[in-house]
Amino acid sequence: MQHETMRFTDGKLRLIDQRKLPGAIEYFEADNYRDVKFAISDMVVRGAPAIGATAAYGVYLAAEEYKNKSKKEFMEKIKEANQDLAKARPTAVNLTWAIRKLENIIEKNKNKSTEKITKILFNEAEKIAKEDIEINKKMAQNGNTVVVPNDAIILTHCNTGALATVGYGTALGVIREAHNRGKNIRVYVDETRPRLQGARLTAFELVEENIPATLIADSVAATLIRDGEIDLILVGADRIAANGDTANKIGTYMLSKLAKIHNVPFYVVAPCSTIDTDIKTGDEIEIEKRPKDEVIYIQGIQIAPEEIEVYNPAFDITPAENITGIITEKKVIGKPFVQGIREVKDI
Amino acid sequence: MQHETMRFTDGKLRLIDQRKLPGAIEYFEADNYRDVKFAISDMVVRGAPAIGATAAYGVYLAAEEYKNKSKKEFMEKIKEANQDLAKARPTAVNLTWAIRKLENIIEKNKNKSTEKITKILFNEAEKIAKEDIEINKKMAQNGNTVVVPNDAIILTHCNTGALATVGYGTALGVIREAHNRGKNIRVYVDETRPRLQGARLTAFELVEENIPATLIADSVAATLIRDGEIDLILVGADRIAANGDTANKIGTYMLSKLAKIHNVPFYVVAPCSTIDTDIKTGDEIEIEKRPKDEVIYIQGIQIAPEEIEVYNPAFDITPAENITGIITEKKVIGKPFVQGIREVKDI
Repeated sequence: MQHETMRFTDGKLRLIDQRKLPGAIEYFEADNYRDVKFAISDMVVRGAPAIGATAAYGVYLAAEEYKNKSKKEFMEKIKEANQDLAKARPTAVNLTWAIRKLENIIEKNKNKSTEKITKILFNEAEKIAKEDIEINKKMAQNGNTVVVPNDAIILTHCNTGALATVGYGTALGVIREAHNRGKNIRVYVDETRPRLQGARLTAFELVEENIPATLIADSVAATLIRDGEIDLILVGADRIAANGDTANKIGTYMLSKLAKIHNVPFYVVAPCSTIDTDIKTGDEIEIEKRPKDEVIYIQGIQIAPEEIEVYNPAFDITPAENITGIITEKKVIGKPFVQGIREVKDI
Repeated sequence: MQHETMRFTDGKLRLIDQRKLPGAIEYFEADNYRDVKFAISDMVVRGAPAIGATAAYGVYLAAEEYKNKSKKEFMEKIKEANQDLAKARPTAVNLTWAIRKLENIIEKNKNKSTEKITKILFNEAEKIAKEDIEINKKMAQNGNTVVVPNDAIILTHCNTGALATVGYGTALGVIREAHNRGKNIRVYVDETRPRLQGARLTAFELVEENIPATLIADSVAATLIRDGEIDLILVGADRIAANGDTANKIGTYMLSKLAKIHNVPFYVVAPCSTIDTDIKTGDEIEIEKRPKDEVIYIQGIQIAPEEIEVYNPAFDITPAENITGIITEKKVIGKPFVQGIREVKDI
């Protein structure tokens, strides 16, 4: 991947503007947490792991902004900033995971100077970003050791690549690794309406890497699954409940149901940070409803009358029973998921 | 519906240009069969019944063009024109149904003058167009007497409305009639990628008629079906085999499978002319593969890299077992379909 999802440099978080890819390669710069929040909510940056790392830089930028205040005010302002950042998007747990991680670090270091705490937060954000790539590579290894056969025809949904993470990718990282290992795979990618992350981002990454791939409209997948054209389905996740129920991009439930009926292995690829053991099942996961304009306009072109109502959920819940396994950086979790999840989360 | 799908006037077939709706209301005029063929293949006009009526005018326009030739040459030229017209699109049987109907009329009247035959063909094309509206209204009556309950929440796919027919519509005709009867229905409409007939055409018709309706991305339907939000699914058809297997817009199979699993009634609405008893099952139906540009460009805007391969089937096959019933102008055909189809086709 030639284009980095994010890089912190000269006091600014520089994000590739994913709203404009692949038509234009532009960068969005955030030098304060409010711009970081906007970048997440408007989907300049998206993908659960990338959102997590971005949010960590957001917490640091709030500290940077307030480090000359009194300790009390500094602490209060960061708390406010974190509460605000946490509202950027509701479904991907990595957002609150990263914020909580940095809040714990603030708590541990609360007796240090604001300057010192700010420096520690910066180092932690950099560490989260750096570790994200390492974690992705471990998932890619685990996925390829255990799951992906040679000559596999793999279906994927949305974008779970380098652009959805700090680098490499989750589901698309497993695909990238399979290709790099010479496994002779082929990929079908759903265009993933309404934001077209499959068409705009995954197709872009696959073409750049010369991985043989075919783009399809979302409703084509069902017949490919039925007709035995798909050997394996790999998707990412925005939040995984303690029982394995998984929130992921709208359309994932449909794929999982057809996969189950037609006996196609269906794997979720996600770092342990995407597993939220605070919630028991998918019923507790909030599904973000996005604006109607995302459906009735495509890149500024109107495709439906303004007067029509629109229902635009960004995610859906795939029940654990439809999932063959969860590929994490620690291991590939098989059923029963409750037990495997407790193991990888050290509970 | 304020806008007529087609009208023959002053020697020209005037078609509303469905490639440009709803952004622009423009008309495409065809005064020869070659332009009629283009209008069908480029989807100026689409929808099985509308294609049938359009093709009938195409046969007449070929006769008009050659009526001053010798009888022998006239007959040969019409035959050539018909063979050419029949190639415009492969899946919707109404195209060849209309052409064959007019060919039989030519055969019956072959001893008449070319002038006389041409006049008879014009009258027949007008009759097919006029009858199409009557047939739609009968389907709408049958659908409402037998199938659509009060307060139903109905899911539909693609466009099966006035624009897919000469007027009124098939599945959307049933919906229109339910609304006109005061049944207090609500509609979910799939946007129907890649050509977006749901977003562009069905949403347009629903808004014009003030029928309460919500637009969704195609991959949202599965969760609505699962969650019990849909009482009834109504779709059209491009070709129905002798056993009830139905070719319809890509995405229909997925809806039918989820409907079957979740016990949601799933009805196909189509005139008897869409039933092709020459073929036994859906396996024999040719599925049209459309160009890749339909997926990677939306109204001229590029949404995916040029280099990506695309698989773009226009239709899929819904097996008879997933279909609750077939609403025709003669009756609502229940299972076993083979027998009911023989009855309505007078076999």
